[in-house]
Amino acid sequence: MIKARVIVTLKNGVLDPQGKAIEHALGGLGFDGVGQVRQGKVFDVELGHGDKAKAEADLKAMCDKLLANTVIENYAVEIV
Amino acid sequence: MIKARVIVTLKNGVLDPQGKAIEHALGGLGFDGVGQVRQGKVFDVELGHGDKAKAEADLKAMCDKLLANTVIENYAVEIV
Repeated sequence: MIKARVIVTLKNGVLDPQGKAIEHALGGLGFDGVGQVRQGKVFDVELGHGDKAKAEADLKAMCDKLLANTVIENYAVEIV
Repeated sequence: MIKARVIVTLKNGVLDPQGKAIEHALGGLGFDGVGQVRQGKVFDVELGHGDKAKAEADLKAMCDKLLANTVIENYAVEIV
């Protein structure tokens, strides 16, 4: 079995109101020097077969088709 | 400036309906052998000061106070 972690983040320049809200909340909690905060998503996926090359190809296809919106998001796939 | 990535994931045993929905959707898209899928959150945080030890302590406090619900979630802090 292969375990993979997919991280989906907003592209630079795409507004992230959720991140901005967290940024302000951290300031309000007294954390000084907090710069930009951006929020993304992480998916931990288990794949039944043991073929690493196929797993990587499958994971990329999953990101393109379902997990990420490639117009505004980047993704990174990591086999763990 | 220090850049950090915080990954917040659900603890084992905590139900993840969003992950389950993704699991089924991937099956429906024709990806075979997809096992468990769990969804989590990622935060990319920029800290203005350059003190790595203070940054790590701050980030842990941020997770405990705001970014993660430690009753049901684990977090991992990584300085990048």
